[in-house]
Amino acid sequence: MAQKTALIVYAHQSPASFNAAARDAAVEALTGQGYKVLVSDLYAMNFKASATAEDIKGDLKNAEHFVYNEEMLVAWQDSRLSDDITEEQQKVKQADLVIFQFPLYWFSVPAIMKGWIDRVLIQGFAFSMQRMYDNGMFQEKKAMLSFTTGATESMFQPDGIHGDINVALWPLQNGVLHFCGFQVLTPQIFWCPAFSPPPVRTAMLDAWRERLSGLMVEKPLSFAPTEFFDLSFQGGFRLRPEVKEQFASQPYGITTAQHLGKPLPPNNQMKAKQMDS
Amino acid sequence: MAQKTALIVYAHQSPASFNAAARDAAVEALTGQGYKVLVSDLYAMNFKASATAEDIKGDLKNAEHFVYNEEMLVAWQDSRLSDDITEEQQKVKQADLVIFQFPLYWFSVPAIMKGWIDRVLIQGFAFSMQRMYDNGMFQEKKAMLSFTTGATESMFQPDGIHGDINVALWPLQNGVLHFCGFQVLTPQIFWCPAFSPPPVRTAMLDAWRERLSGLMVEKPLSFAPTEFFDLSFQGGFRLRPEVKEQFASQPYGITTAQHLGKPLPPNNQMKAKQMDS
Repeated sequence: MAQKTALIVYAHQSPASFNAAARDAAVEALTGQGYKVLVSDLYAMNFKASATAEDIKGDLKNAEHFVYNEEMLVAWQDSRLSDDITEEQQKVKQADLVIFQFPLYWFSVPAIMKGWIDRVLIQGFAFSMQRMYDNGMFQEKKAMLSFTTGATESMFQPDGIHGDINVALWPLQNGVLHFCGFQVLTPQIFWCPAFSPPPVRTAMLDAWRERLSGLMVEKPLSFAPTEFFDLSFQGGFRLRPEVKEQFASQPYGITTAQHLGKPLPPNNQMKAKQMDS
Repeated sequence: MAQKTALIVYAHQSPASFNAAARDAAVEALTGQGYKVLVSDLYAMNFKASATAEDIKGDLKNAEHFVYNEEMLVAWQDSRLSDDITEEQQKVKQADLVIFQFPLYWFSVPAIMKGWIDRVLIQGFAFSMQRMYDNGMFQEKKAMLSFTTGATESMFQPDGIHGDINVALWPLQNGVLHFCGFQVLTPQIFWCPAFSPPPVRTAMLDAWRERLSGLMVEKPLSFAPTEFFDLSFQGGFRLRPEVKEQFASQPYGITTAQHLGKPLPPNNQMKAKQMDS
């Protein structure tokens, strides 16, 4: 069996951080399982975050009206992307598993990691108009978010001050990871380690190590299959009538955002369904 | 009456873009109404996106274990933030209205704009543990998202391939803007201008100009008042029992993410309530 590869995209400024410890735990556990482990330490690499014309070598398609996604598609086709992007794409290509390790900034990833997403996961390489969601490029790969919060778990409940964490996770897990076809594993959330006593932090890392030992046999999260939708501009990329009918008698919507005006399926972005086909 | 000030935080690489036209329309309309209009053209400024120790002048509080939000709080108190951040904060201070103008990248803002959020809206300046949401620093200010999409409106419906746009908007509108206390105006969404014929693009800009003429008397979006919650660690920052009871008989949850297991209030992040107190 070929050696498996994991990529950890890591964004914390300090080697003394809890995020660094979580990264190290993953490197150690996955290496121990025989993985080749690649780490993109974004701050240490001084990774460029902003999507600019410098991301392209040679002439632009339309310098007068620069459109990033169009220029990047052409540059990718012609192998004229900047070296830092090509290097990251090579890592993604190799990876069977991608772990994003970061502190939650403003209900999302830090800007430097958003820059990695914006610049590396470009059209052509990571998706196309024909290949997205469960038809996506990366169907054979798994990806997951692993992050620390400043908030407590109770704040991110459906009756908490920040609202349901499942809503906060949707843009990243559906809009980025699943959009590219990744099988999305349950997020690993370290709730508020900064205000947790050392034994609690240790226990969090132990639980993470425990989870890592069985990570690759975990069932991924459920998303709406693209076959549920009429994937045409006439059909508006909306649910097919027969599928809508099928869900009419169900107590919950399909996913956190494809809710059909019904209550959200509880923890749709947090837990894999046990009895799903 | 003192002159009002508007700040447009703008992120597009090309002066020939639809985003540039939307920005220009806003500058023109607001200037015409007597506003002082400030523009932060992030790409033109080569705005630094990544949150690093370079954002702080002088010694760090704890260089061994660099914690960005803690270091930034101290540096802000001591007036030792980097000049580019201080300049943006001065603009925000002056502004009665902040408009974020950008193309939607991955269900969110481009990395360069996330960098502006991460680096400028720091603890002390934009929020504190005591001052957040409707107790926030910027209660007297209004803010709004104005953005272009590659997707059509139908794709971002509760039965669309991307799911309900209200879910995608929550992290930015609640997690960033409302968290800082801003009164959040209805987002201005330009659906798919790149694939729209010139008359449609023109009509979109005309509608934006029309809206700008009455922007400052618009009713902002509704969020859950902080008085609904038990703002203590014992209480978990969760809904007070009497409020929960009050909503028990309601058909909808309170907001998109504070949904209480009920259907989401339709278009909670897209439309102001007409009959709200």
